Amino acid sequence: MTKEAAFIANGGVTSALGFRAAGVHAGFRKNPQRLDMALVVADEPCACAGTFTQNVFCAAPVQVSKEHLDGVSYGTARAVVVNSGIANAATGEQGREAARAMARITAEEVGCPATEVMVASTGVIGQHLPLEPFETGVPAALDALSRSGGHDAACAIMTTDTHPKEAAVSFAVESYEGCTFTVGGMAKGSGMIMPNMATMISVITTDAPVRSDALHEALVNAVNKSFNKVTVDSDTSTNDTCFLLASGAAALGKPAFQPGSAEFAAFEQALQAVCNNLARQMAADGEGATRLVTVNVAGAASDVDADKAARTVANSPLVKTAITGHDANWGRIAGALGRSGAAFRQEDVSIDIMGLAVCRNGMTVPFDEDEALRRFEDPEIVIDIDLGAGRAATTMWTCDFSHEYITINGDYRT
Amino acid sequence: MTKEAAFIANGGVTSALGFRAAGVHAGFRKNPQRLDMALVVADEPCACAGTFTQNVFCAAPVQVSKEHLDGVSYGTARAVVVNSGIANAATGEQGREAARAMARITAEEVGCPATEVMVASTGVIGQHLPLEPFETGVPAALDALSRSGGHDAACAIMTTDTHPKEAAVSFAVESYEGCTFTVGGMAKGSGMIMPNMATMISVITTDAPVRSDALHEALVNAVNKSFNKVTVDSDTSTNDTCFLLASGAAALGKPAFQPGSAEFAAFEQALQAVCNNLARQMAADGEGATRLVTVNVAGAASDVDADKAARTVANSPLVKTAITGHDANWGRIAGALGRSGAAFRQEDVSIDIMGLAVCRNGMTVPFDEDEALRRFEDPEIVIDIDLGAGRAATTMWTCDFSHEYITINGDYRT
Repeated sequence: MTKEAAFIANGGVTSALGFRAAGVHAGFRKNPQRLDMALVVADEPCACAGTFTQNVFCAAPVQVSKEHLDGVSYGTARAVVVNSGIANAATGEQGREAARAMARITAEEVGCPATEVMVASTGVIGQHLPLEPFETGVPAALDALSRSGGHDAACAIMTTDTHPKEAAVSFAVESYEGCTFTVGGMAKGSGMIMPNMATMISVITTDAPVRSDALHEALVNAVNKSFNKVTVDSDTSTNDTCFLLASGAAALGKPAFQPGSAEFAAFEQALQAVCNNLARQMAADGEGATRLVTVNVAGAASDVDADKAARTVANSPLVKTAITGHDANWGRIAGALGRSGAAFRQEDVSIDIMGLAVCRNGMTVPFDEDEALRRFEDPEIVIDIDLGAGRAATTMWTCDFSHEYITINGDYRT
Repeated sequence: MTKEAAFIANGGVTSALGFRAAGVHAGFRKNPQRLDMALVVADEPCACAGTFTQNVFCAAPVQVSKEHLDGVSYGTARAVVVNSGIANAATGEQGREAARAMARITAEEVGCPATEVMVASTGVIGQHLPLEPFETGVPAALDALSRSGGHDAACAIMTTDTHPKEAAVSFAVESYEGCTFTVGGMAKGSGMIMPNMATMISVITTDAPVRSDALHEALVNAVNKSFNKVTVDSDTSTNDTCFLLASGAAALGKPAFQPGSAEFAAFEQALQAVCNNLARQMAADGEGATRLVTVNVAGAASDVDADKAARTVANSPLVKTAITGHDANWGRIAGALGRSGAAFRQEDVSIDIMGLAVCRNGMTVPFDEDEALRRFEDPEIVIDIDLGAGRAATTMWTCDFSHEYITINGDYRT
């Protein structure tokens, strides 16, 4: 990052200028103590981009937000409204009508066209979304909107997350003297979580001046290297959504950052840092996780192969249970690599676990088991793989598989 | 099947004429009560075919058995020797030498060329295979060979299997009057099982007269619709191997079954029945399994799509934990279908769980939750999916994910 780029303590979706937020209990959940609706409002209409789940069973709010972004996944937005508790997925035309109504109610209160409201939902699949909670919740959230409301908003979108996920980075660039820019955001857990719960949702804002088409390109790049590299249980949910809004409020009256410029690169770096941070928080807070697991693959023949290899290792239940058991069981990693579809020869493979060489030339290397056990005490387990087949590399984040995962996911839904 | 085709009570790898077998404690495992080496010997050299793991990290015995089958995966064999305890995987050239020695020691005792011995190993990855146990174990097994030795052989190849897996079917065909033919076999658990344990291994024999090239084609077809449709934890191991030997001893002096003939079709049906039965036993005995899970997909646009859809559902940790929790959670099934890569529209999808309609037109259908809970008491859970996108169909077998799975796989290796 360029000079002065830094994470902001307690930063989040309202760290950037031009945005206010709130989280309220609207009534999607029974517990009145539990925030269940988040509202993020921009002071002025601003550039907006979105990325969405590729799942064929995509939820109604995903379809409606895409409509509002005019089919190109970028455009203009004033507000984002998110509810937790009900996913509005597998609900057909009635679900799409509910998602459109959710936007309309919000638009009427904020005072903007309904198409300038982005919507997202997370929770139980197959239940219809009631509109009454929006009718009381949106006015309440509007009253509560504040420049420090990011934290409540982050809490309101949680499902089985054990804590809210927020991050923000500020940066300066020489060509915009006197300006400090900020990218900040919030996210909720990856994977399909509690019985019937769905979704990763993230809302990111910036006060840098970026046009919506450039914003979209930057968002797609950043998401591909962050949220799309997180896997908790290999599930791509029905509701996965990430929005990025740019107010330009930190450099009012100045020209927009041009793609390819130094300032645009600085913005992209800040955005990537925020997305990576949120993605790691998601993986570390996977259901029942006791460890964040980072899988680094190098020496792949192509980017596609690097992704296949890292993803297959990160999704392997055998690798994930071995980590829960503090077992430097590289045979399971090798097994996953071998079935991943990535091109390599077994005699070219090296594997390190927590910096300990465990496999060289595809064969076992004696290592200090006691030292390995000590290193497994770390909250982050790092696996380094070199396929010896090329120069492509990637990083994937996941978590281990514990008894708690089975308890969370095996509980009776009733 | 044709007339008189039937499963044989307590049938196994020595049910077919022309084969004897034994299982002994050779010393690969410390517990002297535990059988750890199986030997199957044909009275005469006979036709043999093999199918093997596609994993890039394929084990030394897989490489050597392929050499012995002359690169075409079919040829002639007299004996199959299998050890459990050590997989001889990720062991490089030294491992290949050990696998060749394992065949040579067996060949010397049996009195045949080393290339007529097929080898397989299962157990810990990355450890070198000692030869001493073969030097004492093979003569002991030869002494113990019998027409009723199939059960001991099936016990000797077990790793974390909770019971041996055997099946045999007999059949008659009009054109071979007076002859009764048999196909029988044994198998051990699918998936990568205990810490560092690998492998599904199956040895099947028949006394039908089938040439080795036709045998290979029949084996590939049968394996694709049985063992290749089993998934415990999505892992294809380093050592997966299936051998099929045909002695022709039930119709000595008579011509071989010709592919395309009625008798060949009867043989293929019997082979499929044995493979399906063994495959279902494997899935039901998956690590920590409390339920056999059968996933039927119909209405797919192609065979490839049917396989993708069924495999993604069967491998979904969320689906598997829901079954452990007796939860008719079709949203997780829909989520898995939607990310499977199979082509369909969500509004065309129907899902039944244990015969209860839970999803029609991609939307939820009210069902009796108490009745669903009652049906979940069944030892086999059946999921029926219709994608409404075509006419292709398939069946996949798996098991649920229980706490026991985490305990088995999360245990310290040390």
